[in-house]
Parts: sequence; structure tokens; C-alpha cells
Amino acid sequence: MKQRIYVKTQELEDFTIDILRNSGLNETDSRITASVLLSADRRGIESHGVARLKRYVDGIKSGIIRLTPDVKTIKETPVSLVIDGDGGMGQPIAYNAMKKCIKKAESSMMCFASIRNSNHYGIAGYYSLMALESDMIGVSLTNSAPLVVPTFAKDAVVGTNPISIGIPAEKQKPFLLDMATSTVPRGKLEVFSRKEEPMPDSWATDEKGIPTEDSLKVLDNLLNRKGGGLLPLGGGGEMTGGHKGYGLGAIVDIFSGVLSSGAFGKDVYGKKGQPPEVAHFVGVINPEAFMGTDEIKKNMDAYIEMLKGAKKAEGQERIYVAGEKEYIADENNSEKLSIQSKVFDILNGLGEEFNLKLEGE
Amino acid sequence: MKQRIYVKTQELEDFTIDILRNSGLNETDSRITASVLLSADRRGIESHGVARLKRYVDGIKSGIIRLTPDVKTIKETPVSLVIDGDGGMGQPIAYNAMKKCIKKAESSMMCFASIRNSNHYGIAGYYSLMALESDMIGVSLTNSAPLVVPTFAKDAVVGTNPISIGIPAEKQKPFLLDMATSTVPRGKLEVFSRKEEPMPDSWATDEKGIPTEDSLKVLDNLLNRKGGGLLPLGGGGEMTGGHKGYGLGAIVDIFSGVLSSGAFGKDVYGKKGQPPEVAHFVGVINPEAFMGTDEIKKNMDAYIEMLKGAKKAEGQERIYVAGEKEYIADENNSEKLSIQSKVFDILNGLGEEFNLKLEGE
Repeated sequence: MKQRIYVKTQELEDFTIDILRNSGLNETDSRITASVLLSADRRGIESHGVARLKRYVDGIKSGIIRLTPDVKTIKETPVSLVIDGDGGMGQPIAYNAMKKCIKKAESSMMCFASIRNSNHYGIAGYYSLMALESDMIGVSLTNSAPLVVPTFAKDAVVGTNPISIGIPAEKQKPFLLDMATSTVPRGKLEVFSRKEEPMPDSWATDEKGIPTEDSLKVLDNLLNRKGGGLLPLGGGGEMTGGHKGYGLGAIVDIFSGVLSSGAFGKDVYGKKGQPPEVAHFVGVINPEAFMGTDEIKKNMDAYIEMLKGAKKAEGQERIYVAGEKEYIADENNSEKLSIQSKVFDILNGLGEEFNLKLEGE
Repeated sequence: MKQRIYVKTQELEDFTIDILRNSGLNETDSRITASVLLSADRRGIESHGVARLKRYVDGIKSGIIRLTPDVKTIKETPVSLVIDGDGGMGQPIAYNAMKKCIKKAESSMMCFASIRNSNHYGIAGYYSLMALESDMIGVSLTNSAPLVVPTFAKDAVVGTNPISIGIPAEKQKPFLLDMATSTVPRGKLEVFSRKEEPMPDSWATDEKGIPTEDSLKVLDNLLNRKGGGLLPLGGGGEMTGGHKGYGLGAIVDIFSGVLSSGAFGKDVYGKKGQPPEVAHFVGVINPEAFMGTDEIKKNMDAYIEMLKGAKKAEGQERIYVAGEKEYIADENNSEKLSIQSKVFDILNGLGEEFNLKLEGE
């Protein structure tokens, strides 16, 4: 049996929109959500692509994701927004907040939205990309299910809390950082457990809080909340900088959940029996606030060229800058892309109910 | 011979002010610079404390640090500043920029300054601390001498580029992240080379760009610019997340050097035969832009208590949050503190010229 199946990119997007619409989401929000999912698949971040669609549909069915949320702006200044997502789909909530920030920053030079009471919003990088399309600097952070252990702890009380920052360039592709603040996401442990290979000991701890190479054990512990979890960027303890990744993950939690008085830390799983709550922080800086769009884009070209032109380490053929691999993948996947046959089957399983069929080869 | 000598904290600060003033720096700037240096020593970050004083005095003597710079605001909006430091002392330049940002953000809700053509500004955390004293969120970034190799490179073209972010709390001490974006600073390699112990291989590469445990070799290579250097947070390659630390270091360079059209990357050592140029990015967010100062400070208490209350890993007695160890050190060192006898001697060497003497025990 084939491991991967090719599908036409546009057909996959249309199919995703149809599934969401048939699940009760309105047309506009279905299009936004599908765009975020497809962007992940195109950019090679499969864990956040259409492989997530079933989880969203299940979330809608169970009521965790509300179809007609009363999204409210709780507070607004020329440079900031606090938004309550009322348990709606994360993608349209964050998308609309970012749109407002871009609009406001045209005159106010910067704007950031701290968003509470939302759901999973897909890849953080999507919202920074929106800023880049308007020649602005984009920032996108979100908290997430508590899978990461603080330095010296054995409880996973912090999310993989990603940081994405994008800066436009002129001739070069924009610089686009999009990184979890854990050393690796949970998906990497799944890959190693399937291969039955020991993983690096900077990835996760066992149920006692001790770094381990046994990925299967960690996955089981996380599933059954037995203790332990993923390690922050830098690994266990302080010797290799694990406290730095822990600090960065906390910053994401603070900007998202603390500034909005939303959920943070363990409460992202749900406060006192309530459904899960996710918080985001998205926004933009207009380069006109500093040396100006044209000049900064030229400076970025020079900076990126300097990095890429550095002498290579022995055995290496290329130095990348943040986002470059994803831009290459995005272009390669514009017409068609491959998804796991397991995911292909799940998607067609979802489609059956609505007489929707995804073609593949 | 004693390794460390105790001095009175206030006397050390007064001595530092006197040395700077006698070296030609004006009273105000001498006080600011001494305050930044003492803050580092008090907080246990000796590498950035009075141990640096000789380098500053030498910089003044050689003209690299200009005593009467014509510091100019190149651009200003309600939420931003671009400042040209004209080669002056980094501490007063960054201090004054931060003061302006705090003042502006009282009404404009946030303000960030991108600063070019400055010099070493001490610990990044000092400027975030200034924000905390005004109940604001502080951000402080700076680029620095190129000692760090991008992922897959063998040239050190990026600085250890620290990130500091501070968020006020109510009953708890503020959260204060202050971290180099390399796994460790150069000083850690010096400690290991003195101990003649192998260092973790996530700290640095040899002259071919291959991770090494030989700290002495790396230090020699850096000094003689033979290739190799410190590794970004996450270590070598991508398996343990080194590309993330590299990306974060680049963000610091971009916000500091690119947004201000200052020096970045290799040019921090000096563009085409010119003196070194450092760029910073400092600023604040007024919590009133989001859910408000009182509410956010209460949320921070809850967040910090959640982190510190997590179950501890086997063998661990305490979970810290960012900045906590430094606050403890700061309190312990308020009356007197110990410095290396080597540093004590260097300081008194500097004092001789001006008939200044530092007493110690």
C-alpha cells in the first residue's frame, strides 16, 4: 500500500472548505480556516495541515468549537486590541484580529491584539505571512495544550507555545521565523517511536522528570497524564540552556493568556471542567515607524545575503534563513502535494457524510 | 591568595562613577553607566559588571567610545524612535531612549526605540528593569560582536544577541527574562578551559564548523578569527533546535541593526575599517493597552505561582521563574558583594592614575 497520495492543491482546499461548510461553519470562516490549513501543508508543516481537519470537525460536533461565537472587542486603543473569541474557531478569530491590526497600523504604526477564549489557530506563521503581504513586520504567538515541563519540574504545565516573527525583504524572500519554544513538537516523538529509535535526550523527560531517550514512554505518559513531557528549547536543566526555552514559552503564555485575562498554563486544557481555551497574541509593526519600508527591505536583503554567504561548515552545502525551506516547499506544492494515505482516508471518511470525495493518485 | 574579595556595594559604585568621570565622561552618564555595571554584579552576572570597566576606559582612551557624542533622534512617531548614538557610551544612550519610551507610552500605550551607532550597553535586563519600575512591560535587545555561527555555517557572523523581556507582577517578583540567544556566552567556555574539562557539544564548534568539546581550541579560534564559534541556543544542526536559536539571534539583529539602518552581523565589529558599532532595540508596552495594570499584575501572580507550584522533577528542590535567581542575588548583594581578586586588582590599577583606591577584605 502506498504511504503517500498526491492530491491537487486547489481540490484539497475546496474539499476542506466544503467539509467545514457542511459541518456548519459559515462560508467566510470556512475559507479562512481552509486557507490556514492548506498553507501548513504547502509549507511542509503537515502536523498543522489538513491532518487536523477531523479534530476541528469533532470539536464543532462536541460544541468545544462554537459555530456562531459572539466575538467581542473588550478593549481598544490605537495600538492594541483585547478580543474575546467566545469559544469560536481559532483561525477566523486570529485572522480578523490580524486584519484589524494591519489596518490600524497603517496610521498608528503598530498594533497588537491579545486574544482570549479561542481555539487552536493552526500555524503561527500564517498570521505573520498576512503582515508580510502588507509589507509589515508580523508577530504571532499562541499558547497551547500543556505538554512542556518547566526547568526542574516534572509536570507539563506550559504549551509548545510557538513564536512567529516575519520581516519583509525586497529581492530576497521575507525572513519568517515560526518555531515552537519546545525543542521539538510532540509529532517528532511519534516519528521516533514508529522507527523504534532512541531520541536525543534534549527532547523530553520521563514521568519522574528525568531526560529520556524512550519516545514511546513519553507519549504514553502524556496521553495518560502520568508526569513528564516535552523539554523546552535547550533541553533539560540549565547547562544547555533549557531555562531559556522555558522562559520564552512563558513569554508566549503571558502575551497571549495573561495580557488578555484568558487561560494560560495548565488552564489551556480547560479551567475547572470548562472546555479548553486557547489564547493568542498577533500584531504588526509598520516599518515606517523606523527607517521606512523601502530602506528596511533593502537592509533585509543585505542581512539575508550576509547570512547565506557565510562560509559553510564541513559537509554542509547551504545555509538557510528562517522560512526559506518553507517558501521552497510552498512553491513546489502549489499545483499538487502529497499527504499521508492515512490522512487521505480520514478526509474521505469525513466526506462520506456529505457525499464529498477527494480524488488522489 | 584569595580568589575573591569583598567590597562594599556603594563604595564599588562610587569608585566606578569616579573612574568614569575622571576618564572624561560627564557626571550624569558616569552615574548611569555605573548603575548598569553594578546592577550586573549585584544580580550575579559578573561578566557584564565592573569587570568590563577597563574595557570601557580603554574604549574612551582609544576614541572608540566618544565622550561627547551628538546623539540624534533620526525619526519619531508617538510609538517609535530611531536614534543615532554617534559612537557614544552605550549605557546612557539606551537609558535615555528607554526613559523617552516610558514617557511616551504613558499616553501612546507603547513605544520602541531602534538605536544605531552605539557601543556595548551592559546587561540587556537593566533596561527592562527600568520599565518594570514604571509598571510597564519592558523589552531590551542588542546585537553584539559576531561570535555565533548560523546553523550549518562555520563563520561566526551573528552576536550572542540577548533578549530581555520583563513583565510586572503584584505580590510576586516581576518576571524578567534576560538571555543570550547562544547556548552559552563566551565566558562559560573560559570557565571550562580553566577547569580543563570537556564542555557539552551544544556550546560551540571548531574551526571546521563541527561541534567540539574542546573549549580552549574554540577560544583560540575566536581570538584569531580562524573559524567556528559559539552555537545558537539548541546547539549544532537542526535535530536539537539550533536553527531556532539562530533565528532568534537574527531577530535581535534585525530589530536593532536593520530597523535603524545601523550595523548588523559581521559589521558590528566595524564596517570597512571603521570602529565597532552596536545597535539596540529597547521599549515598553503599557499594560493599560491590554487588560490594565492591576489586573495583569494579578494574573502574573497566578501565573508565576502556577509555574513554581508545579511538581518537581526527581532530585530537584525548587522551580524558578525567569529573573528569580537574579532578584535573590540582588538582595543578598545590596550591602556588600564579592568580586574576583583579579578584577579587584585591575580596578585599583585603573584608579592609580587618578589617586582612587577601592577598599576590600
